[in-house]
Amino acid sequence: MKNNETAESRSINMYAAIEAGGTKFVCAVSDHELHVQDRIHIPTTTPSETLGAVFAFFDKYTLDAMGVGSFGPIDANPSSPQYGYITTTPKLAWANYDFLGALKAHYPQLPIAFTTDVNVAAYGEFKRGAGQGKKNVAYYTVGTGIGMGYIHNGGIYMGDQNPEAGHILVRRHPDDTFAGACPYHGDCLEGMAAGPAIEQRWGKKGKDIGPDEPAWNIEAYYLAQACMTTTLFLSPDIIIFGGGVSKQSQLFPLIRSQFTRLLADYVTVPADADQYIVPVALGDDAGITGALLLAQEQAA
Amino acid sequence: MKNNETAESRSINMYAAIEAGGTKFVCAVSDHELHVQDRIHIPTTTPSETLGAVFAFFDKYTLDAMGVGSFGPIDANPSSPQYGYITTTPKLAWANYDFLGALKAHYPQLPIAFTTDVNVAAYGEFKRGAGQGKKNVAYYTVGTGIGMGYIHNGGIYMGDQNPEAGHILVRRHPDDTFAGACPYHGDCLEGMAAGPAIEQRWGKKGKDIGPDEPAWNIEAYYLAQACMTTTLFLSPDIIIFGGGVSKQSQLFPLIRSQFTRLLADYVTVPADADQYIVPVALGDDAGITGALLLAQEQAA
Repeated sequence: MKNNETAESRSINMYAAIEAGGTKFVCAVSDHELHVQDRIHIPTTTPSETLGAVFAFFDKYTLDAMGVGSFGPIDANPSSPQYGYITTTPKLAWANYDFLGALKAHYPQLPIAFTTDVNVAAYGEFKRGAGQGKKNVAYYTVGTGIGMGYIHNGGIYMGDQNPEAGHILVRRHPDDTFAGACPYHGDCLEGMAAGPAIEQRWGKKGKDIGPDEPAWNIEAYYLAQACMTTTLFLSPDIIIFGGGVSKQSQLFPLIRSQFTRLLADYVTVPADADQYIVPVALGDDAGITGALLLAQEQAA
Repeated sequence: MKNNETAESRSINMYAAIEAGGTKFVCAVSDHELHVQDRIHIPTTTPSETLGAVFAFFDKYTLDAMGVGSFGPIDANPSSPQYGYITTTPKLAWANYDFLGALKAHYPQLPIAFTTDVNVAAYGEFKRGAGQGKKNVAYYTVGTGIGMGYIHNGGIYMGDQNPEAGHILVRRHPDDTFAGACPYHGDCLEGMAAGPAIEQRWGKKGKDIGPDEPAWNIEAYYLAQACMTTTLFLSPDIIIFGGGVSKQSQLFPLIRSQFTRLLADYVTVPADADQYIVPVALGDDAGITGALLLAQEQAA
């Protein structure tokens, strides 16, 4: 999407989107047809500093509604006293922080949809990306962490809270002696397969590891387990991978073949593996697209 | 519940319930207040023999609706061409069998609700048992196999198909050298923790293993992993265990303590562990109760 902020764009009413990540906030405004008119990247430092820059960006526009996807874990249960809080994140400046409350304090009249960062990306892919036409869409981001968002029957799934499937226990690959990088669980899925685990295990970032190196077989083994567990628990129509690690296209055939071997045809999946386990179609725009869609629905 | 079949009970209209298990079929009829008027246990042999006895039982009554919970995996997606089939069961006489079609052929006018055996038990516990007043209820049966049924926002959860969470991969307990008993996955959850796994590992049935023996720590380790994965994927309000193995009351404190250790407070569960991981309240009647409730809703 292109930025084409003009005097005219400042005079029309906008939808606002925040994709709040642990490293950076992406903020965007769009017209009512969801064409992005302006966007900004803001480093995630402290709440006051980061939100100060967020407000400075949005205050230039007349906003009709806002969609927010936040890193977390967050409390997204509207009946909870901590609704809208970031809860147990290892980013201590944001732990137990009333993020939604801060937004509402600054924009008291604005309708705000608040959910997780992975849910907005899942919703974007469901409506405009690889999940179009499906009913049940599981979306994983594999980057600095691993998170899953799930669209069930066309809506964002939530139980008592949002899924946190990035932290499921996995079986260790027999060739893998890495201890695991998750501060909570050590060698859970995120602890073994997110970007920091790859970097600590191999001494270099995933983007610097050649496509034929054994690193990707091990990575695929963990992501294939995530696909198997997702299939057995949720029975989605498709599983979509986004985030930095998923840009390694050589991963997908490896994930699919290991998934097929692990599942052993116990249940039937609704598509061939190459249509069932796929990369994100919207690239890095999945989250902002989903957040704008939620803002649009909030305004409707 | 008591059987009090009388001339009078044969003259009123009944709801019919089938809890179709891999070992036996339980069939029951109730009045419109769901008081069971008659019930029968029929061994699960071949479809023609077993269903012959099922029809002989129900043909005595005037039926208004039927609820069926079947062993499986089944195809419970109404838009699938194989809707109502038992699919890949290791019970070969029933594999790829059109169970719902056989019922509809015999009772062409009867409204029939068709779902999994664990879903009817989950629904019974949700409406009348340990899950009353909750919105999201995960129910596991741990017996000759392991199955999970899930009530989400008050309705039976289904994605493309029903969950088959009994077959998720688990981490092996360090003291456990048992190879695993699942014909599909070897040492998956069912392969390590269902009744046949216990019997093969220890050389005796669970009911003959003393409550202080190490078998239960190992069993609890696997069921605690199921609870952790359930929590991270679904975020239910409660996790209920039924089936033969769950009658071992010493298991529950062990499951809860291992669950709490594994989860490491990464997410908050909606109740203390002793209220979050609980045994079934309706005992062996959970399934029939749920099937009758589904029949009642089908007739409404």
